[in-house]
Amino acid sequence: MSRDDKTFVGVNWGSTNFRAYLIGADGAAIDEYSAPAGVVSLDRDGMAAKMDALAARWPNSGPVYASGMIGSNVGWREVPYAEAPAGCADLASAALATQIGSVPVYIVPGITCRRSFDGAPDVMRGEEIEMMGLATLGTADGWIALPGTHTKWARLERGRVIEFFTSMSGEIFDRLTAQGLLASIVAGEAHDGPVFLEGVAAGRARRLSLGTLLFGARARVVRGALSKADAASYIRGLLIGSEIADAMAVYPTAGEALVPLIGNRALCTLYASALQAAGVASELVDSRTACLHGFRSLHELRHD
Amino acid sequence: MSRDDKTFVGVNWGSTNFRAYLIGADGAAIDEYSAPAGVVSLDRDGMAAKMDALAARWPNSGPVYASGMIGSNVGWREVPYAEAPAGCADLASAALATQIGSVPVYIVPGITCRRSFDGAPDVMRGEEIEMMGLATLGTADGWIALPGTHTKWARLERGRVIEFFTSMSGEIFDRLTAQGLLASIVAGEAHDGPVFLEGVAAGRARRLSLGTLLFGARARVVRGALSKADAASYIRGLLIGSEIADAMAVYPTAGEALVPLIGNRALCTLYASALQAAGVASELVDSRTACLHGFRSLHELRHD
Repeated sequence: MSRDDKTFVGVNWGSTNFRAYLIGADGAAIDEYSAPAGVVSLDRDGMAAKMDALAARWPNSGPVYASGMIGSNVGWREVPYAEAPAGCADLASAALATQIGSVPVYIVPGITCRRSFDGAPDVMRGEEIEMMGLATLGTADGWIALPGTHTKWARLERGRVIEFFTSMSGEIFDRLTAQGLLASIVAGEAHDGPVFLEGVAAGRARRLSLGTLLFGARARVVRGALSKADAASYIRGLLIGSEIADAMAVYPTAGEALVPLIGNRALCTLYASALQAAGVASELVDSRTACLHGFRSLHELRHD
Repeated sequence: MSRDDKTFVGVNWGSTNFRAYLIGADGAAIDEYSAPAGVVSLDRDGMAAKMDALAARWPNSGPVYASGMIGSNVGWREVPYAEAPAGCADLASAALATQIGSVPVYIVPGITCRRSFDGAPDVMRGEEIEMMGLATLGTADGWIALPGTHTKWARLERGRVIEFFTSMSGEIFDRLTAQGLLASIVAGEAHDGPVFLEGVAAGRARRLSLGTLLFGARARVVRGALSKADAASYIRGLLIGSEIADAMAVYPTAGEALVPLIGNRALCTLYASALQAAGVASELVDSRTACLHGFRSLHELRHD
């Protein structure tokens, strides 16, 4: 059995990271490689060199699929978004066949939607792979969350992405605790517990907006009502609680089924706790597994 | 008439700036001096040298009052907050007599409150001077706003600060547009107009939280629904609209009287426009004038 009949390659090529998988027909990773070589840090020669190096590592490895910001206007070539509702067949047929360095590559489009609940546009590039994998893994309907720097909350129907919204609460947390007013009151990481849940409750309540709630963290520390060791937990709670209020406001099916959470495990655990406090059950799904199955679904549709 | 009978000195000594006024008995500035010499950038010798230099510039100038972060744990000496309700007499009696370098100085306390609407603590150091000045200038009751990096919304009764909340929306704007996702879509300053007011309306509506609304600015630009030249206006609108929703939710007297806005003129003009869209009339009050009158009121109470 020659490798080129049975294997293929999936690459998550985002703004800051490059993650490649050599994948077998069963969807399992045979080998994998990652590097902090996102498109933002590379020019075109750098991107070409990266793909050539991958081909040298995995010769005759079958078709190559690349998702993420590689398909944006700061990537190799801009691939128009697929319009939601979009499923795996839509992504497979809209994938753009091109060549990066000496390597033929299918660049997977992202997805755009116009949201039913507020008419606003939203966009994703990269997360669609995990969402497709999730459908393969058994969750084809309901709402799901991909916690991260820019958390996606999406609604699926029969494996297709119907609509979604993005919250940049991860980036807000990172930037506001790295420098400035809140940096001086934060000591240590966020952790689950009563202080985190107090933040979640305040965020969900929406009596005050995030700009006001976040300053409140500082005032609590100054007045001795919050320790610096707990400040990150409280602030994360405010941000995650606000997001959950958004999700429950716009997705009326909230809480009818387990909500899959895909992403960094520590962060997903915080989301799970916050959702539980809101009466919503969730389950953690391994991000890498979802990604591998997403690429496998795409490959089967593109090459059957 | 010797100067030392009639003049006095007011110093706003914040985290990043030092602003000093030589003030006559009528509250007008005879001379003034400012420098980017906030307490964060100075050690104790640096603070002492700054005050000695001021005394050399204005010899025999009468009592010296200093407000702001100079009275915090990163300043010269920590002065406990006055507890709200707090008026000028409370601040005058709680001012701490000390010596910075060779200069006798009264350090004015900030104000803390426990808010009636959510039981949370809040704090200010420095803004209380302008609020006291406002009372002298004729606004002793109602709610007022001091737009800035950390905007204060306060409720006054008979010239006393009853309670207040702080929104760090100015800092959120600054940090999120300086680096990261939003930095790449912002070209130019925020300005009043339809796009700004669209942001205000979305922020006030509270259907979605700020973390989600802010990502929406990015999605709009990517999808061609918002120009980079207008992005700052939209983002500022979201943040200011959210604050106004907070103020209207917690201060039931909203809109019954003109709301004084004290601060940077360009920023206050945006707040005025956003308030007008919410049916609330406002008036711009010169920050420097309010500050001079605040110090004058304090001086009269301390030395009558």
